[in-house]
Amino acid sequence: MPPLPHRRAADCRIVALLTDFGVVGHHAGVLRGVILGINRRARLADLTHGIPAGDVALGAWTLRWSWRHFPTGTVHLAVVDPGVGTSRRALAAAAGGRFFVGPDNGLLSYALRDAGSARVVALPPPDGSCGLSRTFQGRDLFAPVAARLACGEPLSRLGPPVRDWVCLPEPRPCLLRAGRIGGEVIAVDHWGNLITSLTEHDLARARIGPDAAVRVGRRVVRGIRRTYADARHGGAIALINSNGHLELAVNQGRADQVLSAGNGSRVCVSD
Amino acid sequence: MPPLPHRRAADCRIVALLTDFGVVGHHAGVLRGVILGINRRARLADLTHGIPAGDVALGAWTLRWSWRHFPTGTVHLAVVDPGVGTSRRALAAAAGGRFFVGPDNGLLSYALRDAGSARVVALPPPDGSCGLSRTFQGRDLFAPVAARLACGEPLSRLGPPVRDWVCLPEPRPCLLRAGRIGGEVIAVDHWGNLITSLTEHDLARARIGPDAAVRVGRRVVRGIRRTYADARHGGAIALINSNGHLELAVNQGRADQVLSAGNGSRVCVSD
Amino acid sequence: MPPLPHRRAADCRIVALLTDFGVVGHHAGVLRGVILGINRRARLADLTHGIPAGDVALGAWTLRWSWRHFPTGTVHLAVVDPGVGTSRRALAAAAGGRFFVGPDNGLLSYALRDAGSARVVALPPPDGSCGLSRTFQGRDLFAPVAARLACGEPLSRLGPPVRDWVCLPEPRPCLLRAGRIGGEVIAVDHWGNLITSLTEHDLARARIGPDAAVRVGRRVVRGIRRTYADARHGGAIALINSNGHLELAVNQGRADQVLSAGNGSRVCVSD
Repeated sequence: MPPLPHRRAADCRIVALLTDFGVVGHHAGVLRGVILGINRRARLADLTHGIPAGDVALGAWTLRWSWRHFPTGTVHLAVVDPGVGTSRRALAAAAGGRFFVGPDNGLLSYALRDAGSARVVALPPPDGSCGLSRTFQGRDLFAPVAARLACGEPLSRLGPPVRDWVCLPEPRPCLLRAGRIGGEVIAVDHWGNLITSLTEHDLARARIGPDAAVRVGRRVVRGIRRTYADARHGGAIALINSNGHLELAVNQGRADQVLSAGNGSRVCVSD
Repeated sequence: MPPLPHRRAADCRIVALLTDFGVVGHHAGVLRGVILGINRRARLADLTHGIPAGDVALGAWTLRWSWRHFPTGTVHLAVVDPGVGTSRRALAAAAGGRFFVGPDNGLLSYALRDAGSARVVALPPPDGSCGLSRTFQGRDLFAPVAARLACGEPLSRLGPPVRDWVCLPEPRPCLLRAGRIGGEVIAVDHWGNLITSLTEHDLARARIGPDAAVRVGRRVVRGIRRTYADARHGGAIALINSNGHLELAVNQGRADQVLSAGNGSRVCVSD
Repeated sequence: MPPLPHRRAADCRIVALLTDFGVVGHHAGVLRGVILGINRRARLADLTHGIPAGDVALGAWTLRWSWRHFPTGTVHLAVVDPGVGTSRRALAAAAGGRFFVGPDNGLLSYALRDAGSARVVALPPPDGSCGLSRTFQGRDLFAPVAARLACGEPLSRLGPPVRDWVCLPEPRPCLLRAGRIGGEVIAVDHWGNLITSLTEHDLARARIGPDAAVRVGRRVVRGIRRTYADARHGGAIALINSNGHLELAVNQGRADQVLSAGNGSRVCVSD
């Protein structure tokens, strides 16, 4: 594990925000205000506020695909929290040279697994008697903790260590038979591309080569290409995307529409 | 009123942006460029650019619910300005330890009322002869003033004082009879929650307790809860939200759809 | 041409982002992380992430309308890149005291033309053998280059000079007959306003005055006004917008809907 830059506060004040708050309301803005109120020198960087409301799994995938691209010392504040105000715990963690703050509902779990050797603490619930809200803990609990970590406050001072944080299941490819594996669509991106649970690594282990057939719904896409433009205009292609996942795309079109598929659609790859 | 940090410029350069520009076009981006061109060290923080086009009232509510969460010294630049280019005045203000810049159409009025003891000046209209636009005063008038305030320029140097700025009416609960008050939906948030004009304070004054019935349209929601998760899955609940307003929500669903209500819908609460 | 501030790095670290990544996914966020990972002191400023997917022309217009409003020394990182991963070149440029980084598909061309005296270099393609992606060069090629320019690295060190970058055609008004010119709608903004290819300069050269008739589809709008509020409520007007283009708007309404027009609609102006 890279050394944690607790004490290099002056240079490590990036706070990256991932939420399902959208960009319409004031909620993401208020997080920014709270953080700057506690740590005026924090460097705020939106990762995204566009996680669909309450979609913890897509939040977890997004954090997994992104955290490494921020520098060490970054504090990743992640709030997708349909259980806000219940007894679900709140977490802060250090792993992979970064910090992570968010609810204990699996949102952080993929990133913590990939980073490895995570140290995790449970945050005390906000004291309702001080006017803190039970419905906006992003503002009243998570953002203040992120700001304090960005000030260099040690993780150990934030709460007692925990080891049993909630982990989302890791999607495993379904080995249908030799040279044939199954998975599902886990995300549809801004361009309509279908990101599947199957990775380059899964394909290699199943000895599936570049001439494979990828079936989604009733459509079959032949070959695994290198770039979107390898398809003819409007044609569907399969490729390994920038995060190492098998992705279905349509050159200058939307794969979700052309292939009539979306989150949860089954995908089958055969060599 | 907290002291105004005119001269602590080095530490008070946050400029928070609230507009109805949306996130699709270049308008919000150009504001950022203009501010950084005048004050390269300004710290920009989006409050939101998602106010519906021309919705001054929702802009005013959003600013009311947010300004306190930014640190003292913050310059709140607010542009929801359907009357741009007309004779409506332009304002800059100091109140509650923050600064506010925007059109004189009521947009700033709730925040100024809550902050109290506001000092307000009228900004001279931009000189059309210098190529300044009559259609994008966010760029040509308001952003430059916000940047100058963030540089520590005194308010008094920006224009003559005014006392008669436009104030939006404060929605008062309608006392229907003892233990029964009426209000309306003033905002629908990103998750479909219905925020009403009724506050915790209104309910307390009408001696309405936690077992009250909240009627919106033909639906009645019983009880005022503490958190979204207090409802069964898909069930509608009423609660006091993080800004002290009565809110109708659906656990893991959209209250606007489930309750067939939206902005302006009447709400009635009876004990 | 203003002097290029290569060596005033400490004060010129603004990186302005223009993409078609939208605000839902993690792609724009990852750009931010990559830039901050290389240049922790870079000042990030979103110009917009709302260019429609693959719409190089609208990206080019947006950059043209915006770059001047950012201070000298700004690095404009622009990624609208439907040809990502093909043999299309990647560019970095210095012009008008700013820097520009993006694909060689015309995206930068309007800004470079307006800034004048551009120095342009071709960026070596990322080395696929190092795990760099062929599908997300924003992350793996363009953002790192922008970060290096923001560190003060000289343009000449980034690649060999080129002179034949792709230029988008400049829309010329169609002179229909004396006092009558034709153009088209090139953008529909957030408020539904129709921005046309015709500029104030085009109208002046054709000797078209403020009483002109503007025809779009079957509708005729009479007179060229100064501000949106010059129309009655719900009425359509034509005006010269803040970028010097003829624009059709509806006071407190949407011109695209009221006039049944959109991108590519023909516009004719007669005196």
